[in-house]
Amino acid sequence: VSRPVRAIVYGVGAMGAIMARLLLEKGVEIVGAVARSPAKVGRDLGEVAGLDRTTGVLVEPDARPALERGADVALVAVSSYLHVMAHHFRLCLEHGTNVVTIEEETVWPWHTAPELAAELDATARANGVSIAASGAQDVFWMKLVATLMGAAHRIEEVTGYCSWNADDYGPEVAAHVHLGESPEAFARHLEEHGWPDFVARANLEALVADAGLTVAEVESGVEPVLAEEDTPSASLGRPVRRGHLLGILDTTTVRTAEGPTFSFAMAGRVYRAGEADVNEWTIRGEPDLHLRNDRVPTRLITCTSVVNRIPDVIAAEPGLVTLDRLPQPRYRHGALTLPS
Amino acid sequence: VSRPVRAIVYGVGAMGAIMARLLLEKGVEIVGAVARSPAKVGRDLGEVAGLDRTTGVLVEPDARPALERGADVALVAVSSYLHVMAHHFRLCLEHGTNVVTIEEETVWPWHTAPELAAELDATARANGVSIAASGAQDVFWMKLVATLMGAAHRIEEVTGYCSWNADDYGPEVAAHVHLGESPEAFARHLEEHGWPDFVARANLEALVADAGLTVAEVESGVEPVLAEEDTPSASLGRPVRRGHLLGILDTTTVRTAEGPTFSFAMAGRVYRAGEADVNEWTIRGEPDLHLRNDRVPTRLITCTSVVNRIPDVIAAEPGLVTLDRLPQPRYRHGALTLPS
Repeated sequence: VSRPVRAIVYGVGAMGAIMARLLLEKGVEIVGAVARSPAKVGRDLGEVAGLDRTTGVLVEPDARPALERGADVALVAVSSYLHVMAHHFRLCLEHGTNVVTIEEETVWPWHTAPELAAELDATARANGVSIAASGAQDVFWMKLVATLMGAAHRIEEVTGYCSWNADDYGPEVAAHVHLGESPEAFARHLEEHGWPDFVARANLEALVADAGLTVAEVESGVEPVLAEEDTPSASLGRPVRRGHLLGILDTTTVRTAEGPTFSFAMAGRVYRAGEADVNEWTIRGEPDLHLRNDRVPTRLITCTSVVNRIPDVIAAEPGLVTLDRLPQPRYRHGALTLPS
Repeated sequence: VSRPVRAIVYGVGAMGAIMARLLLEKGVEIVGAVARSPAKVGRDLGEVAGLDRTTGVLVEPDARPALERGADVALVAVSSYLHVMAHHFRLCLEHGTNVVTIEEETVWPWHTAPELAAELDATARANGVSIAASGAQDVFWMKLVATLMGAAHRIEEVTGYCSWNADDYGPEVAAHVHLGESPEAFARHLEEHGWPDFVARANLEALVADAGLTVAEVESGVEPVLAEEDTPSASLGRPVRRGHLLGILDTTTVRTAEGPTFSFAMAGRVYRAGEADVNEWTIRGEPDLHLRNDRVPTRLITCTSVVNRIPDVIAAEPGLVTLDRLPQPRYRHGALTLPS
């Protein structure tokens, strides 16, 4: 005897809208939808998410009423930074609701945000629930790579490269890659604010932890990727001007105390016609090993990965579960249910 | 406080010889080496395995004395068929020794050899140890694919293709692919003996089980791959004559009761100059997903995968542990040890 999983769509942006559809197609009962935008509040989730049906769920600006309805899990997709997201996570966990998020730092936050990580871990434990991050990094940037490493006798270096279309994720991500800015403005921004250790670092930290290794040194860098000609951008709503930022190339290298080095270069930029996302990893050692995914639909698999993780996060030991501690990802055929 | 893992190299053929080296490089204490061949018995394992050192371990024709010395695990690489191997597995398990093997049917034997599987499972449980299969199918043909499936919302079809060099694994495997035979002799063999459900089937059964699906129908087929010109073969010790078998193309398709179809085509044949092993999988559904490994050193990763599985098999719940029930493969940096 089983019942549908009960979920909250927490954040109804580009990603939340896709997740809403996937959840409904997996028979999940959506008990709440949360978004701040006055353009979304009060409207049916189906309409806001661009589905061809209404859901009977109205978008609410405050998560509390939705959380009080009792959900097994909240799919949280609001911002890319843990310090911005912590408030939302806390709210879910305190209501006894498990969290799966695409917030990238939560993949492995113990070095970049140790206090927040410890606090969220404690809150999750105290409420008997879990919080974990999934998204593109789960299957493609972390678990496929960790699995490939399982065929290595001796590793000297693990090197990854991926590209993703900065036009695919809405204005929040467009702003993150400084889409359309002049290189001078971007340089000034770097000078004033530095550059946060982003996706690549959390991802590599999870890979290093998975292999039982210890981080000794982290080096991050970012370079602007400039438009060679005026290039249309959907997220920007206008073309990126020639010489301005199409996006960025984010590179992080982690050296371990034990020897192996890990590095990951991520190109997030608006594409020219015909380009598609790739994911490519090489292990140098004994033996050399290679992995390549062509035509990765990064935007969609960000969402499918989160939905497929729902059973794992519900089943996990309470606490903050970093990506290395989640089991191998799994395809979920049919409806997502729980014993009733 | 830890001590080295204690292992037995059970079968000192092409694969056992590589495993012996890998074990020594991982600080494993080899307490026995077992082989039948009079050319190997009584000689030092290091010499038989072509290492540049002696090991103090003499190859023995009978496994019992080695097993009585007390090993944590036996790496068993003798033959490709479970009915041939069962005797060896039984002997290890009855001595309280865990088994990791490259015998392919053991990957998931419950449909093709249910009685043997049940017997080995019971024997393993009764002795508090485990038996599992690893090898090339572990990381490349099964776990990478299952992981990729974890990014799928809806799967219609999973299709795999791999190639491996039939000249790389010694005479046992060369005989299995009927290397050097005439197509007429191969056709007669098929008529008289049929074709065993081999690697591809066990591999697909593990993938299907991993996704929680149910096998409804299995279709296997084999085609000879013929030499277009006389082609040298190391395992054969003579060229394969033009028009004779360079190897085989083994194809298995599994239809599930729930809908998704899985198929795997494996080309095992002697290579022409410049060819290398590939592993390539496509998932058709929402979304379509692709995975490709180029230049797979199949022979070596068959052995590295087994060695990296030692901690998992020792830690597993007692019994026959099919590949879907083993955790994500993991790189093992440094020495393989156990708490002492």
